[in-house]
Amino acid sequence: MKLYDVDASGNCYKVRLLASLANIELERVPVDLQKGEHKQPAFSRLNPLGQVPVLEDGSQVIRDSQAILVYLAGLYGGLAWWPAHAEGQAEIMQWLSFAANEVDHSLCAARLVEKFGADLDQSAALAKAPGVLTLLDQHLEQHDWLALGRPTIADCAVYPYVVLAPEGGVDLTPYTHISRWMTRIEALPGFLPKP
Amino acid sequence: MKLYDVDASGNCYKVRLLASLANIELERVPVDLQKGEHKQPAFSRLNPLGQVPVLEDGSQVIRDSQAILVYLAGLYGGLAWWPAHAEGQAEIMQWLSFAANEVDHSLCAARLVEKFGADLDQSAALAKAPGVLTLLDQHLEQHDWLALGRPTIADCAVYPYVVLAPEGGVDLTPYTHISRWMTRIEALPGFLPKP
Repeated sequence: MKLYDVDASGNCYKVRLLASLANIELERVPVDLQKGEHKQPAFSRLNPLGQVPVLEDGSQVIRDSQAILVYLAGLYGGLAWWPAHAEGQAEIMQWLSFAANEVDHSLCAARLVEKFGADLDQSAALAKAPGVLTLLDQHLEQHDWLALGRPTIADCAVYPYVVLAPEGGVDLTPYTHISRWMTRIEALPGFLPKP
Repeated sequence: MKLYDVDASGNCYKVRLLASLANIELERVPVDLQKGEHKQPAFSRLNPLGQVPVLEDGSQVIRDSQAILVYLAGLYGGLAWWPAHAEGQAEIMQWLSFAANEVDHSLCAARLVEKFGADLDQSAALAKAPGVLTLLDQHLEQHDWLALGRPTIADCAVYPYVVLAPEGGVDLTPYTHISRWMTRIEALPGFLPKP
């Protein structure tokens, strides 16, 4: 099973983190963004959106980090990380959307500008960050894990851009419940540290 | 089962469309955005993000249109709209993410500015629209439906902001495969027209 991968990408790290925690073997295929490999026809055939990560499992090709988490957890992770019942799936889905939307447009965007010079609105991204982190902190004041009372792909989807947020100029120290949640994730067997 | 709902919202329409197609009864509870009801404590307890739609099913409260589609289809829609196997779920998830990200930041954002005066970058949104629609059109050149070769919640998630795109100043006429796909959706039993 191949993961088309960029080391510094938080979206790719989501997938590598789950694979490591759930003991799923992946062959990493590096994609060179500097050389524009993600815009070449060979890659566009895998993902017309031109984004990493992409998972290739035999004839199955899955793009989008959240979709890959569902695929890997559902097929190879047992029921621990992605349950079979729709109530649990929907509870997790809320956090996959939170990762893809609120976290992406604040913590992730700020880091893309700061670290990679991306052409995005850094001040807008930084302005959104406290609201996103406060909401997360308040949830984690009441819950040890984001969903289902146990580690799931919800945690794998949200943790990466939170732990990487200081690289975008975001200060995590005010958020004590987030900090304890990160410590819990980092203590899980098979935990993979951030790139 | 209550849907906290705004009539003109494409995200709420996603849920109403699935409910209508899959014959799921919902009690609509209108949320008055003009009066700021979505920022009042009563609503914040349901969704701290302050966004519609929210589904309340007994003690279960689900926010985020994509998560609600998974919940409703998985619990009340049989296996037609959201399958039990992870390959199929992941195939659909790619399009739920496409709806929440690419479609949201182009077609939906342009309409929010044009129709409701939202404080978003209209020219950036309009600039993204052709790429998003071209990608969708190319997929629909090869496929009758977005995923699994049949109508699923992927179609319910993507159709609303596509059919509403002209309200944001986006011209759909160049996209003939999209147009045929919309006609197929509109011919489904139980189809609910756009608000």
